[in-house]
Amino acid sequence: MLDAWSNLSRRLSELDALAGTSGLLEWDQQTGMPPGGAASRGQQAAVIGSLMHERFTAPEVGQWLGALEQSPLDAVQAAAVRKQRRNYRRATMLPTRLVEDLAIARSEGFSAWMKAREADDFGPFEKPLQRLIGLSREAAERTAGPQTAHLYDELLEEYDPGSRVAELAPMFTRLSAGLGELLAAVERRGAQAGPQAVELELDDAGVRTLSRRVIRDLGFDLSRGRLDLSEHPFTCGLSVDDVRLTMKLNRKNPLGALAGTIHECGHGMYEQGLPKHLSGTGLDKAAGMGLHESQSRFWENFIGRSLPFCAYLLPRMQGIWPDLALTPAQLFASQNRIERSLIRVHADEATYNLHIVVRFELEVAMLEGRLQAADLPAAWDAAYEKHLGVRAPSARQGVLQDIHWSSGLLGYFPSYTIGNLYAASLGACVQQEIPDLWGQVARGEFGPVLAWLREKIHQHGHTTDAPEIFKAAVGDRDPVADLLDHLWSRQGRLYGVER
Amino acid sequence: MLDAWSNLSRRLSELDALAGTSGLLEWDQQTGMPPGGAASRGQQAAVIGSLMHERFTAPEVGQWLGALEQSPLDAVQAAAVRKQRRNYRRATMLPTRLVEDLAIARSEGFSAWMKAREADDFGPFEKPLQRLIGLSREAAERTAGPQTAHLYDELLEEYDPGSRVAELAPMFTRLSAGLGELLAAVERRGAQAGPQAVELELDDAGVRTLSRRVIRDLGFDLSRGRLDLSEHPFTCGLSVDDVRLTMKLNRKNPLGALAGTIHECGHGMYEQGLPKHLSGTGLDKAAGMGLHESQSRFWENFIGRSLPFCAYLLPRMQGIWPDLALTPAQLFASQNRIERSLIRVHADEATYNLHIVVRFELEVAMLEGRLQAADLPAAWDAAYEKHLGVRAPSARQGVLQDIHWSSGLLGYFPSYTIGNLYAASLGACVQQEIPDLWGQVARGEFGPVLAWLREKIHQHGHTTDAPEIFKAAVGDRDPVADLLDHLWSRQGRLYGVER
Repeated sequence: MLDAWSNLSRRLSELDALAGTSGLLEWDQQTGMPPGGAASRGQQAAVIGSLMHERFTAPEVGQWLGALEQSPLDAVQAAAVRKQRRNYRRATMLPTRLVEDLAIARSEGFSAWMKAREADDFGPFEKPLQRLIGLSREAAERTAGPQTAHLYDELLEEYDPGSRVAELAPMFTRLSAGLGELLAAVERRGAQAGPQAVELELDDAGVRTLSRRVIRDLGFDLSRGRLDLSEHPFTCGLSVDDVRLTMKLNRKNPLGALAGTIHECGHGMYEQGLPKHLSGTGLDKAAGMGLHESQSRFWENFIGRSLPFCAYLLPRMQGIWPDLALTPAQLFASQNRIERSLIRVHADEATYNLHIVVRFELEVAMLEGRLQAADLPAAWDAAYEKHLGVRAPSARQGVLQDIHWSSGLLGYFPSYTIGNLYAASLGACVQQEIPDLWGQVARGEFGPVLAWLREKIHQHGHTTDAPEIFKAAVGDRDPVADLLDHLWSRQGRLYGVER
Repeated sequence: MLDAWSNLSRRLSELDALAGTSGLLEWDQQTGMPPGGAASRGQQAAVIGSLMHERFTAPEVGQWLGALEQSPLDAVQAAAVRKQRRNYRRATMLPTRLVEDLAIARSEGFSAWMKAREADDFGPFEKPLQRLIGLSREAAERTAGPQTAHLYDELLEEYDPGSRVAELAPMFTRLSAGLGELLAAVERRGAQAGPQAVELELDDAGVRTLSRRVIRDLGFDLSRGRLDLSEHPFTCGLSVDDVRLTMKLNRKNPLGALAGTIHECGHGMYEQGLPKHLSGTGLDKAAGMGLHESQSRFWENFIGRSLPFCAYLLPRMQGIWPDLALTPAQLFASQNRIERSLIRVHADEATYNLHIVVRFELEVAMLEGRLQAADLPAAWDAAYEKHLGVRAPSARQGVLQDIHWSSGLLGYFPSYTIGNLYAASLGACVQQEIPDLWGQVARGEFGPVLAWLREKIHQHGHTTDAPEIFKAAVGDRDPVADLLDHLWSRQGRLYGVER
């Protein structure tokens, strides 16, 4: 037993090292790799990826797990064995043929999607998408066990272990209805009653300085991480002590760039707060994409778009741009406008979730076989009409806007709204538990909030699934109610509307 | 046979990808890794290193080589199989116990060396060094075959395949004698007759701009490489299309920093010129450290310290620093002073080789058992008296100055002077074959020289060993005579002395 545990632990540490290495290959590719390096980088990433698969799915790993399952284990070991058994089962259950077919379908899907976008025509993407859905369904059927209530749960398991359609679907329905009420109320007031956008154009060097200042103030440890530039902002934890954030500069929208950086910083502080003492158990990891997203959204939206945060931020901005004539209230108003829109990635804090509800409904229908790829564009438009009340004038602004499906990422979208829901309840809780929260935020004292998240979320790593960590953190709260309360209280008040 | 070849080729490509990955881990650690990342980076590098060893020394590799050795092969395949058999034999011949002992001895040797330097006392380093020498000797004895003329050849094989003590020793002896004559002649003229040092203090941003300009002009392809900052300048080829150079800024010695960058650029252009079409054969590699060093020294010294290069450089410098009042001749004089000195890494182009001759003699004596670590300090002083006519006032400025021995790098030092010797003959040749060479250099037209090196050196990769590539490039030249001629002609003229 001792041997099996130390062998498993050694293998998991090796896989961590490979994952960190793979992360560095990716980080470098996005930040500084010379263009000529693309082909060799692809080979390097493929070799590391296939070694990781090979080392994890090796027969001896199954034997160690089997031996450990017959042995007395402490709580950490038992959790580790449960998690790895689950991963091992999923990783070894797909026949090589299916894995290869999926890889090809993803690559073809991506090319077809690019072509379809170029032509602004869904046509070329239809068949590749249908194929991807078919293969995803086959994979889900193969990994499904007797406890699987819905095939889509198998997709969720990949990104958000422990999330279930049976729980998500009713929450998303209530959320959509509630957001519809808020939007309707806001629109009854008329556009002129709403907050005004502040349009700033700030120099890149200043925005970089400000961004570094802000993430340091929030609590991102720059001795255990970096902030660089990339085309698409992302966070990459090479290890708990080496976490890389990136940001994208945008002269015309510096506040948007800063919000993106705060978002990544939320991801990064989660990575930096994971339980280092659990290294070698596989439990020192984020508990899923939804919980990860809750950390980025909490900082970006709940803290970063609050009036007290604007009061903290403005003097720091004026330290760099002394001529900036703005009030915290103007900044706050500009950051919290809401409106029906077509493009998910540009949507505001409230309506963003409606874009996710659309995608979730369509994905479930496609996986169940109720919706064929050929009928997707019409279904897309109908769903947008239903949830958002808008209709895309083109495929590019509609069904072709996201990369996810083209790369076979089915089951990923819900994470974003799961994150917003978790973040809302965490926000409601932290407001109760830290009475001076907003005073602290206005003074730039973010330590107590971060410490609260460290204790409630970060330190637990993946010792249990996210839904349990969340429940232990906030108790029996209703995250849909918390999110709607938050939005009515912040955006509703700003627009002068009440429930 | 076909199977064995394609299996071998696939494995070699996989090893290339791992080597490039390992290079990126190292590059990142030296350039931008946050300090917190050190421990996990060590694990990442160790895992990749051990996977490389495991994948290369696997029994199937030996079987593929065996099958191929029984099969009809084309010239490239035959060269590839020869090279890999040699590497495989060396990599599989050392018992695990010896490999582990060596790793421990290196780590202990490094710590002891640090401690000894700190205390400026050779004592703490004596026993660990003796152990390292003993283990290196044991390793050399194990890899030695019937064709091994001298045990030290087995060490050379590691860094400079094809180099032999029997050829190096007499060359080094002649070189030391010839350099002694040059130094004596210069000193007879008296110090006041010599060229004057130009002392510049230039801003870092300008030096970075100039460095990028210069390496681009020389022919380094920045779409297939980068230039970054690090504490110790180095070059790292992640692949032929992704070559990373680094430089170290030094406000007080900007010309030294630039010379270092040109040196690394020489390494980098060699890496960028390796034969891409031989990928998957293991022959698309540098043919050894000596030949690599010939490329860096050729550009740093032969081109980079020439009067025409100074004439090219000065206007580019004045473009950045318009007030720079200097002539090319002053720059040239300052860059070509020679003097006896104690520290290898600060030595000039001529006397540098004497530092290497000292180390080579001591290494051979230690490996033969004629010299014990306990007697090394005295032997060091005696050798410095003999070859350089100076005596270190402290261990730190003497026998403890280099990191190499502490890390078990025995047999590496000769590469530096092998590089200088090769570079001298390449320089003599290129001067004959490109009659307008110096006119081109003065005009900043480096393309023809680079093309010449690409044809004579780079494109051959490691299809044969460096001594053969060198001979094919320059014919029956005597590199010792070429180096001495070059120095008498450049430095001798500058000091107003003749042979």
